[in-house]
Amino acid sequence: MNNSFGSIFKITSFGESHGPGVGVIIDGCPAGLNIDSTKIQLDLDRRKPGQSAITTSRKEDDEFEFLSGIFEGKSTGAPITIFISNKDAKSKDYSHLADKYRPSHADFTYQQKYGIRDYRGGGRASARITAGWVAAGAIAKQFIGQIGVTSRAYVSQVGEIKVTRLYHGEEITMAEENEIRCPEAEVADSMIAFIKDIKQDGDTIGGIITGVISGVPTGLGEPVFNKLHAQLGKAMLSINAVKGFEYGSGFEGVKQKGSEHNDIIENTIEGIRTKTNFSGGIQGGISNGEEIYFRVAFKPVATIMKSQETIDEKGNKVEVEGRGRHDPCVVPRAVPIVEALAALVIADFVLMQQTTNLEN
Amino acid sequence: MNNSFGSIFKITSFGESHGPGVGVIIDGCPAGLNIDSTKIQLDLDRRKPGQSAITTSRKEDDEFEFLSGIFEGKSTGAPITIFISNKDAKSKDYSHLADKYRPSHADFTYQQKYGIRDYRGGGRASARITAGWVAAGAIAKQFIGQIGVTSRAYVSQVGEIKVTRLYHGEEITMAEENEIRCPEAEVADSMIAFIKDIKQDGDTIGGIITGVISGVPTGLGEPVFNKLHAQLGKAMLSINAVKGFEYGSGFEGVKQKGSEHNDIIENTIEGIRTKTNFSGGIQGGISNGEEIYFRVAFKPVATIMKSQETIDEKGNKVEVEGRGRHDPCVVPRAVPIVEALAALVIADFVLMQQTTNLEN
Amino acid sequence: MNNSFGSIFKITSFGESHGPGVGVIIDGCPAGLNIDSTKIQLDLDRRKPGQSAITTSRKEDDEFEFLSGIFEGKSTGAPITIFISNKDAKSKDYSHLADKYRPSHADFTYQQKYGIRDYRGGGRASARITAGWVAAGAIAKQFIGQIGVTSRAYVSQVGEIKVTRLYHGEEITMAEENEIRCPEAEVADSMIAFIKDIKQDGDTIGGIITGVISGVPTGLGEPVFNKLHAQLGKAMLSINAVKGFEYGSGFEGVKQKGSEHNDIIENTIEGIRTKTNFSGGIQGGISNGEEIYFRVAFKPVATIMKSQETIDEKGNKVEVEGRGRHDPCVVPRAVPIVEALAALVIADFVLMQQTTNLEN
Amino acid sequence: MNNSFGSIFKITSFGESHGPGVGVIIDGCPAGLNIDSTKIQLDLDRRKPGQSAITTSRKEDDEFEFLSGIFEGKSTGAPITIFISNKDAKSKDYSHLADKYRPSHADFTYQQKYGIRDYRGGGRASARITAGWVAAGAIAKQFIGQIGVTSRAYVSQVGEIKVTRLYHGEEITMAEENEIRCPEAEVADSMIAFIKDIKQDGDTIGGIITGVISGVPTGLGEPVFNKLHAQLGKAMLSINAVKGFEYGSGFEGVKQKGSEHNDIIENTIEGIRTKTNFSGGIQGGISNGEEIYFRVAFKPVATIMKSQETIDEKGNKVEVEGRGRHDPCVVPRAVPIVEALAALVIADFVLMQQTTNLEN
Repeated sequence: MNNSFGSIFKITSFGESHGPGVGVIIDGCPAGLNIDSTKIQLDLDRRKPGQSAITTSRKEDDEFEFLSGIFEGKSTGAPITIFISNKDAKSKDYSHLADKYRPSHADFTYQQKYGIRDYRGGGRASARITAGWVAAGAIAKQFIGQIGVTSRAYVSQVGEIKVTRLYHGEEITMAEENEIRCPEAEVADSMIAFIKDIKQDGDTIGGIITGVISGVPTGLGEPVFNKLHAQLGKAMLSINAVKGFEYGSGFEGVKQKGSEHNDIIENTIEGIRTKTNFSGGIQGGISNGEEIYFRVAFKPVATIMKSQETIDEKGNKVEVEGRGRHDPCVVPRAVPIVEALAALVIADFVLMQQTTNLEN
Repeated sequence: MNNSFGSIFKITSFGESHGPGVGVIIDGCPAGLNIDSTKIQLDLDRRKPGQSAITTSRKEDDEFEFLSGIFEGKSTGAPITIFISNKDAKSKDYSHLADKYRPSHADFTYQQKYGIRDYRGGGRASARITAGWVAAGAIAKQFIGQIGVTSRAYVSQVGEIKVTRLYHGEEITMAEENEIRCPEAEVADSMIAFIKDIKQDGDTIGGIITGVISGVPTGLGEPVFNKLHAQLGKAMLSINAVKGFEYGSGFEGVKQKGSEHNDIIENTIEGIRTKTNFSGGIQGGISNGEEIYFRVAFKPVATIMKSQETIDEKGNKVEVEGRGRHDPCVVPRAVPIVEALAALVIADFVLMQQTTNLEN
Repeated sequence: MNNSFGSIFKITSFGESHGPGVGVIIDGCPAGLNIDSTKIQLDLDRRKPGQSAITTSRKEDDEFEFLSGIFEGKSTGAPITIFISNKDAKSKDYSHLADKYRPSHADFTYQQKYGIRDYRGGGRASARITAGWVAAGAIAKQFIGQIGVTSRAYVSQVGEIKVTRLYHGEEITMAEENEIRCPEAEVADSMIAFIKDIKQDGDTIGGIITGVISGVPTGLGEPVFNKLHAQLGKAMLSINAVKGFEYGSGFEGVKQKGSEHNDIIENTIEGIRTKTNFSGGIQGGISNGEEIYFRVAFKPVATIMKSQETIDEKGNKVEVEGRGRHDPCVVPRAVPIVEALAALVIADFVLMQQTTNLEN
Repeated sequence: MNNSFGSIFKITSFGESHGPGVGVIIDGCPAGLNIDSTKIQLDLDRRKPGQSAITTSRKEDDEFEFLSGIFEGKSTGAPITIFISNKDAKSKDYSHLADKYRPSHADFTYQQKYGIRDYRGGGRASARITAGWVAAGAIAKQFIGQIGVTSRAYVSQVGEIKVTRLYHGEEITMAEENEIRCPEAEVADSMIAFIKDIKQDGDTIGGIITGVISGVPTGLGEPVFNKLHAQLGKAMLSINAVKGFEYGSGFEGVKQKGSEHNDIIENTIEGIRTKTNFSGGIQGGISNGEEIYFRVAFKPVATIMKSQETIDEKGNKVEVEGRGRHDPCVVPRAVPIVEALAALVIADFVLMQQTTNLEN
């Protein structure tokens, strides 16, 4: 159960960093959906390594193939399997780590949990497995796109450098014009320069991604344990290196009074709307038709090109130094991952809502 | 599926604010566990309304009864059903709201989702349903207590007033000495005074609860979609009024460099430990044996004793003003809820871990 | 997970034979369904003990109450909890059995599984818990009734006495005119006389119930692991004392050739139909619009009023003799249970189908 | 959810008859299990087409590859993906059927359900997808083999020709000595001769497989909705062409009296045993340590080499005649499928049982 996500539009993830490849099964995609493969590849390209000077130099095409579920360009209702081969896996970069626990990696915890671990490139703990999620998310985007929903994201903070405001809907596409995927050009430049310095120094830095889901119909999300924001939060916290999730007013909202924070409801010419949107488009776990926005905090990548103290499997003190190819900052490549998971969450709730009341 | 939480140690929640009562079924509690009813009642008392000057004046004993699953003081492996009657339900306080959508409440979204809603006291959207969770959590605490794990929480911030440091394990019990459940006496006094002012003004305020899980063995949590912190985050985001979740370094961690943030692993006389704990006791989604800590952000309660603009079901502009009995600040009563859900998450992972490798 | 059944229209069962009562939660019943309580009580009465000379003499009204989920006579989308008190529980009838393992009962296996057991009246292993299922099924019947589907069942065999043909749809209601619930009056008389003899002798006898689901739309059921008949089979095999399940041609069908067994498809004035129905209304796990019929085999009740050899918990040889109040033949009271579970299966597939293709 | 089976040791099936291939993901196989690939291939060979004169002439090696989850010959706790390419797919054999509904096939029901279907070789409805189940089952066999459990099956009936008694444990291996997989040599000869006649005539015939699980520890299975035999029944009813399932005394048991059917419990030198085993090794849904045995009824294969009336998608009357390569009787190749699913069910319950009581 632990490699699956979702209830009806459900994915199962598989693969390791240095095995034959990574992939995903989508079980529950409605039949008859036209699948545009170009869009899937486009999102995979946004996530793939080696795409710019501020990402890892590992070279992977990340070209995908369908192993099942598509017939004459359409979903058939059968499980859709997507597979992405590993091509540039340099396992020997990792042989010196086979018996060492890298600080703030999952080496120690996997060994404790399983009594065995595939140490090559992090194995199952590698962010490489998110390629499958991105491919699945690209299909979810096409499904929710049919009812006018879009899932977008952008980098809103790197270290202490941040954007000046919240970006909405269409305007977020500006973020794709620079390597860091930040919609504010000048801020993007500062972020890129900063990351280059960090990389030069063999170090890494954290950052924040803001996700925005537009065009969401009212009524999505479940009232108790599957609240829209709870499932969205779980999805985001499943991404490697994520340390926090907030939506709407988030942590800042705790400082507000109810009289300030409440979103007044109005009947406008464009329908029932709220004057403000501190709720982040969700009330009581259910979408209210306003834009959903949320922020995801990423810690600095644990692999640094500096020598660090640690221990080996026998408990002896040793030193480790990163040798593989790694990102100085994870956020630019994580943007499509955030979008993909948000789209998967929405797709699932859209289907769930079709079973909720007798009018459906 | 949407009123259940957990995979093996699993709860199903039921009940509404102004129906016969609220409750919970625990399915998957191991057989043979001694159940101490006093401890269940104690946690229910910490959550119940009317317990102090800074909580709602609704009077509920919140006494529970077992409808199934306990025989001669022990769990039998059968589902444990706990029921808590509603006694002081004043439904007529709500009749004036039957066709109005209160701002930042779930009235509008429930109506949109279901085409029908039980408007009395928020119905299923009421925080009263968390009484069942607290009772279930009290049993989960007893289960994980057997292997030395404790789940504690305290109020760390109200509005802008906050504690000066992180509190650990046993010392958190100090928080129970004041009405606000803050372990720093002077800060607690300021918080209480502030909330009284807010209440006086008919307004409400947000706050933050810090959760601390001590004594966690290594190896709990699943590596991909059921990461320990992802499930913990989903649990917390299921609590009414929660807007954000972070663990370990959280949102602040994004400002750090990898070389600062990495937790150096050491072999000490008390076992393998990390020098720092920015990871919050979790690496790669799996516990590393350090203390798990996290923060949960609560928005100000939406019901205020002030007049607010809104619309009714027909879309007409109307005014609403809170008349029910409500909390000016939700955090003191939410402390046992945070503890309960954290205990449920850990109990589930403890059982899951028993199926994970051949040595178990 | 083990006390729940269904994916979307999902029930969770709780309670023991001699505890406070038994019940069920339905999670996933669509909002806005009118709930006719009379019909629920009617089905409970058909299952309740003491209803005739050929059933157990335990006296239970089996009156139910809603603990949650109904507002102004309608489902609200919240979990519906139904509770049925135990009134005539005579636990002392069982105290002599506290440390003995009755032959072909679950005493020994529960003790082995859990290391503890509630020996009073079979505890969780009692067929009394099916009262909750019947109540839930009565609601499922109302839901599927809206689209013209009925779930009916009748006794088709007791010992070697059997009906002469398959009964269909409406005509099955004739079965309710006699105590054994068999639609063939003369056969019913023989069955009743036979059971009276068996009872007189302190013995018990097995039987077969035939279930018939009429008015099923095409397309229900899932193609691989949730085939309509596989889920139906699992449901029936969950009923106490059931030893076998077959649908359509069943075990007899193995003797046929493909050229005899294939159901020729025709386009008739009443739509696409098959000439024969050896398929039992299901092809490839999915309903084809024909009537679904199946047979469920019940072994003789294990509790007999005769002395039998067995062992106690210490392994010593002892004798046991039934003293509680028991049925000489389980089938007449199991008819509404079969109907209820079949209705629950169909309700679940109806909702699932609403998520299956883009035309929905 | 519909292409997955199991709770903890869980498989997800994918692939179509005439796509790139078929496969399976196992999620939840404990870490550290030595995987013997030879045994996996052996079971695939027992299922593969073209293995004898009485099976289809489609030629497939059915060689498998691991796409994930195995490291240095062991399971790592990560999902294990197994893929089997389609090599001898002759899709054009099916082009004449693209718009026709074959009698007693899933053509019509898939079209009704999904509004689209992959008509090539039955697509997802083909028994070819069971190759993935067999591979997964071969791993489950290795897991349960560690605690001494074996899952075996044999053909006990073809048409009206049947074996004379129940076969147990080790002696079932005799069945592998003939093409039909029947442990009684003379009966096997009659069956083979009969099938050859049937094939000659372009027709097909049904049959029965008996499954036997030996060495099962007490305590496996869940008491209410996940009874050992209910899950086993669901598994078997998931196999293509299955029409019925019974265990222990089965349908014959309905004719018995309680005093005949009850299995007397004894304390013997080899532990607690029952004198007879009408219960089929399961009481109250939980294993009692005796051998589990069950029977699975298969209808005659629907594809016959004779002309049959039917309709096309437009409702016009047409004729169809089988042209693909098909089996005259499905049972010899279904033996390893029955074994595989039974092993998967047991593996799941073994893991579940590790979470059930405090002594584990």
